[in-house]
Amino acid sequence: MLYQTIDILGTIAFAISGVLVAMEKRLDLFGVLIIAFVTAIGGGTLRDLLIGNTPVGWMQDLTYVTTIFISVVFAIIFVNKLKYLRRSLFLFDTIGIGLYTMVGVEKGLEAELLPIMCVFLGTMTACFGGVTRDILCNEIPVIFRKEIYATACILGGASYFLFSQFPIKDSYAYIAAILVVIIIRLIAVVFGVSLPSIYKKAA
Amino acid sequence: MLYQTIDILGTIAFAISGVLVAMEKRLDLFGVLIIAFVTAIGGGTLRDLLIGNTPVGWMQDLTYVTTIFISVVFAIIFVNKLKYLRRSLFLFDTIGIGLYTMVGVEKGLEAELLPIMCVFLGTMTACFGGVTRDILCNEIPVIFRKEIYATACILGGASYFLFSQFPIKDSYAYIAAILVVIIIRLIAVVFGVSLPSIYKKAA
Amino acid sequence: MLYQTIDILGTIAFAISGVLVAMEKRLDLFGVLIIAFVTAIGGGTLRDLLIGNTPVGWMQDLTYVTTIFISVVFAIIFVNKLKYLRRSLFLFDTIGIGLYTMVGVEKGLEAELLPIMCVFLGTMTACFGGVTRDILCNEIPVIFRKEIYATACILGGASYFLFSQFPIKDSYAYIAAILVVIIIRLIAVVFGVSLPSIYKKAA
Repeated sequence: MLYQTIDILGTIAFAISGVLVAMEKRLDLFGVLIIAFVTAIGGGTLRDLLIGNTPVGWMQDLTYVTTIFISVVFAIIFVNKLKYLRRSLFLFDTIGIGLYTMVGVEKGLEAELLPIMCVFLGTMTACFGGVTRDILCNEIPVIFRKEIYATACILGGASYFLFSQFPIKDSYAYIAAILVVIIIRLIAVVFGVSLPSIYKKAA
Repeated sequence: MLYQTIDILGTIAFAISGVLVAMEKRLDLFGVLIIAFVTAIGGGTLRDLLIGNTPVGWMQDLTYVTTIFISVVFAIIFVNKLKYLRRSLFLFDTIGIGLYTMVGVEKGLEAELLPIMCVFLGTMTACFGGVTRDILCNEIPVIFRKEIYATACILGGASYFLFSQFPIKDSYAYIAAILVVIIIRLIAVVFGVSLPSIYKKAA
Repeated sequence: MLYQTIDILGTIAFAISGVLVAMEKRLDLFGVLIIAFVTAIGGGTLRDLLIGNTPVGWMQDLTYVTTIFISVVFAIIFVNKLKYLRRSLFLFDTIGIGLYTMVGVEKGLEAELLPIMCVFLGTMTACFGGVTRDILCNEIPVIFRKEIYATACILGGASYFLFSQFPIKDSYAYIAAILVVIIIRLIAVVFGVSLPSIYKKAA
């Protein structure tokens, strides 16, 4: 129940982030729909393909398609209220990667993969939709920009395996890990934190 | 028998459309072959991966590879007779999306997916090869151009589920749906029909 | 044992080639890691997906991830010793396609595919990682450059089915085919051999 709710919340967040990027690029209605879909289901599709979970999840359950469709209609109607597009986009995208990271980790555990592979799978689930959205909209993929993005997913995903060692309910560890992703990403952007350079500085 | 024939006809149409785009870009022989292959099998490969139909279709049956190879040789030899390249390309591409849409719908039904998912699968089967062809050849993907393209596949695929309610042979409903795709696409291009705008017009 | 060793050697060669391209583009640490991973596992992932070998190989065995990680650390530390970057890159890439072509052919045989499909699978295993590396780093994909690249994989893969007709140990035929790929690629680059043109020369 909790896991399904989180999956749907992530779908909404990513669908809206897709609409915002696509409308900024002034794509037509069909283009906006496509970008919203790809952003919302891209990561989960790659994940399901890699672990052999086919037909892929969103094809077997009308919930995803319906959720995305309603989110798109809602976002298009209210886009003018979302005055600060860039800021809204950032917020929805950040919530999305937090939720999707743990959905991916969960699926990895179900497929009995090693913890490190679960973390990879969570990171791909979280990042791939946004990367595809940015490539299709001709933006530099978020994952390759300076600030910490995928790193937040990796650290958050790993933190779940730490938290789950504690004598707490699994759902608490799960939610704590989601918050770790979101908080690291927020801190990184607010304070402009980036990874250390591997190149020698010019004199 | 009918379904297989249609699959092969679609393969020929898309392979030739791939050769035409690749030769306009003056790729070398190997490049032309690659583009023809990707255009012809790209959509079906994505479809087979999403529904877990592996090894993917064209790997288990020499017919596809042989068909593509013969189509490429034929197209390269007769390319100079196809004086009006752009027009030929449009024709082969339109026939291709009509045929492939219904091949995809058929596979979706075999996998016992919901009708709406079958329509999605048909649209992806029809559009993905051409999108990949255009990206590799550095053209704007057909699917993102103004005119109605994927929309024709969606409407045609959906029409099959309408036609199949009538007391007619399934193969008639199947062929009628193919014609719906082709006719909508033809009308859209000839009359320059496009989707309504979601943006407010500038005063 | 032999096959596994060759798989690991290919992984090392491609991971290092990924680091070299990524550092020439001055990506940050995370970018370098991603490119190294994608280059090393991209081809094998596509291969495993196409034949339905899921969860894909590298997810079920820590060896690959560990090997790539160590190769990346090693390559970053010693990159300044590899003075002639371009030449080193070419060498590692060439060794990589030789090794991966035969890993792909082997997996095709295990999936009981036809010889020609095994050769295709080997070529995709060898080429796809490098193509993705080049696209992500905004270089023209190696496969579309003038010199013979994928053709070397096709000829080498096909040569295995010739060699295996001879009364020799399978492992000899296997290694001979790897050498055929590497030698054809070396000769093609050293002597600037390219495919014959399919276009009429301007007068």
